[in-house]
Amino acid sequence: MAPSLLTTPSQALALTPGASRGGGGGSARVSFPSGRVQRRGGLRVRASVAIEKETPESEPPPTFLREDGSGPGSGSVRERFEAMIRRVQGEVCAALEEADGSGARFVEDAWSRPGGGGGISRVLQDGRVFEKAGVNVSVVYGVMPPDAYRAAKGEAGKNGAAADGAKAGPVPFFAAGISSVLHPKNPFAPTLHFNYRYFETDAPKDAPGAPRQWWFGGGTDLTPSYIIEEDVKHFHSVQKQACDKFDPSFYPRFKKWCDDYFYIKHRNERRGLGGIFFDDLNDYDQEMLLNFATECADSVVPAYIPIIERRKDTPFTEEHKAWQQLRRGRYVEFNLVYDRGTTFGLKTGGRIESILVSLPLTARWQYDHTPEEGTEERKLLDACINPKEWLDL
Amino acid sequence: MAPSLLTTPSQALALTPGASRGGGGGSARVSFPSGRVQRRGGLRVRASVAIEKETPESEPPPTFLREDGSGPGSGSVRERFEAMIRRVQGEVCAALEEADGSGARFVEDAWSRPGGGGGISRVLQDGRVFEKAGVNVSVVYGVMPPDAYRAAKGEAGKNGAAADGAKAGPVPFFAAGISSVLHPKNPFAPTLHFNYRYFETDAPKDAPGAPRQWWFGGGTDLTPSYIIEEDVKHFHSVQKQACDKFDPSFYPRFKKWCDDYFYIKHRNERRGLGGIFFDDLNDYDQEMLLNFATECADSVVPAYIPIIERRKDTPFTEEHKAWQQLRRGRYVEFNLVYDRGTTFGLKTGGRIESILVSLPLTARWQYDHTPEEGTEERKLLDACINPKEWLDL
Repeated sequence: MAPSLLTTPSQALALTPGASRGGGGGSARVSFPSGRVQRRGGLRVRASVAIEKETPESEPPPTFLREDGSGPGSGSVRERFEAMIRRVQGEVCAALEEADGSGARFVEDAWSRPGGGGGISRVLQDGRVFEKAGVNVSVVYGVMPPDAYRAAKGEAGKNGAAADGAKAGPVPFFAAGISSVLHPKNPFAPTLHFNYRYFETDAPKDAPGAPRQWWFGGGTDLTPSYIIEEDVKHFHSVQKQACDKFDPSFYPRFKKWCDDYFYIKHRNERRGLGGIFFDDLNDYDQEMLLNFATECADSVVPAYIPIIERRKDTPFTEEHKAWQQLRRGRYVEFNLVYDRGTTFGLKTGGRIESILVSLPLTARWQYDHTPEEGTEERKLLDACINPKEWLDL
Repeated sequence: MAPSLLTTPSQALALTPGASRGGGGGSARVSFPSGRVQRRGGLRVRASVAIEKETPESEPPPTFLREDGSGPGSGSVRERFEAMIRRVQGEVCAALEEADGSGARFVEDAWSRPGGGGGISRVLQDGRVFEKAGVNVSVVYGVMPPDAYRAAKGEAGKNGAAADGAKAGPVPFFAAGISSVLHPKNPFAPTLHFNYRYFETDAPKDAPGAPRQWWFGGGTDLTPSYIIEEDVKHFHSVQKQACDKFDPSFYPRFKKWCDDYFYIKHRNERRGLGGIFFDDLNDYDQEMLLNFATECADSVVPAYIPIIERRKDTPFTEEHKAWQQLRRGRYVEFNLVYDRGTTFGLKTGGRIESILVSLPLTARWQYDHTPEEGTEERKLLDACINPKEWLDL
């Protein structure tokens, strides 16, 4: 397997060198109810911060690809992957707006970069059902700086080649991904995260004939505050179905990988109840993996929306809400301390608002809170400490 | 200057190898209204987590020092520093309880470790004035593991010796510190952080005659959500007075160091409006620096309490509160991403609840929030982006 350069939730967003800092002050903003794109707000430039930044786009261009051999019309994996993530972004956002049911719409920020690449962030905030929902795509051409490379490969690199790669100097790369975190308001409606990404390195400049590397990564995982077995089993069974279409080894392997990855080491807890996660996948046919990533991304709506429909109006108490807020604090801890995509994005100067849209609208840290034995809160915590098998394999 | 091993807010807490994870489940808890110490709760053991952990103490022992040449009765700097931080802990907590005025009391968790050292965490949560206030002391004997050493020395090590130190292998050390973060409820009452610490290395085992290293670090800084000039000037002037008693170069130098340290790089913002910060101080007389750290710690109450008294009952709106919550989000970002003490503590397995007591009770992340030009919110943000001189020097 290739060294792990692109690894997590916001990785695609993270891979946006030279982006805006201090708020997305440079982006044009549009909302897009039911397919129509409307301009909202306009430019807001923070004059006091002089930085190299992305160029806002009033409308996303048809493609963020460079006009090169693997660009528009080439039928390349790059091109088909970009088309897939943009299609999925639209479909997921439409499904979420419908589930929200309030008329609340995703607001869109699109940007491009002079050297190629760009992104589209879509955020629905303070809807009826969703507290904060972000669905982002981005395409990045870049050269990986040494410390970003180190952060990206992380400790969990699947082989030792990563370290050698770091010594070999900056690597020109292409990366595209879709990344999303959905935080509902109702404490019985789980948070969902998904992220699918494709990565290619270019041949190094001093070795133009060298073979390119490519790999796929991604996953979908569920973070409830309360365990409702029906929901967790439904979620995992949809992941398994997607996996089983390609390889019977995928679900058990990627389920464990997910449990291992979303680990808050300092608390000896997983962030949630898992799902699937994979990275550095290149030891299968490239077309097969493109289809697999597509299948996984297309499974987001059937895996999640039925759960939201069932739980969005469940009655709850202040205590339920407070526990959800505590679990959101754990979400923040994982994302800011361990998530390789987030930490990588923060280091490389990615578009901060897009990277940190994964954080919940509100979170809570209560000193030394331990749920009592026998409570539903304790049951969730125990399952985060000792990951369970949710399906009969 | 010595390499920077102990650097920030929760460093003293951080330096507690092998501590409890997953909540302070192993600690005895007591509350101590007006000097009397009362037992509260008792032991709560989380059976599902098998970890090496600190031993809870129903009452803190008179000293956490080892019975060695620099232990109890020796008059050593270690001994006098421990006595100072424990005295200051008591005085600050008493002043905060009085300011809170609700009868709310700090709850105490004390622990020790078999090999020497221990700590006392005191937390007041959901008082009338304070949302969350933590004042912690700890004393640690340890051997610095390689990756903890790297995190502790950080990028900002004041000289290159740190790297050499890391190569030289684990270093036995003594560390003691007081660390505190105070989050009031009222959006016009600022958050305060202070931390003072003393560090000594032992002679390496293979070179028993080698000289010991020692140094002092610490600081006090203010994080308001709104700028009230009278308060900020009062706070900085008390810091300057403390500094000026020792060296006229201290305030300007440590004020800048503070602005540089509490920097949220990915936002190009400081966490707040600064104060003083210093680290690795050993190029002055050791007695003088002990007195200086004592003076700084004793300045916390006169620097902060008058501000709290003035602002604790200021009327505020939901909008003021929401802005405070957003700034608390920034506090979380700094502490989890950049703070060397916190990141070091998380890596070394320090007592998690003590380390993360620095986080606010509640925080908020709103997508792409930028305060309008000319508002009080924007004025605060601008001062975090471009640090100001608050005093006529």
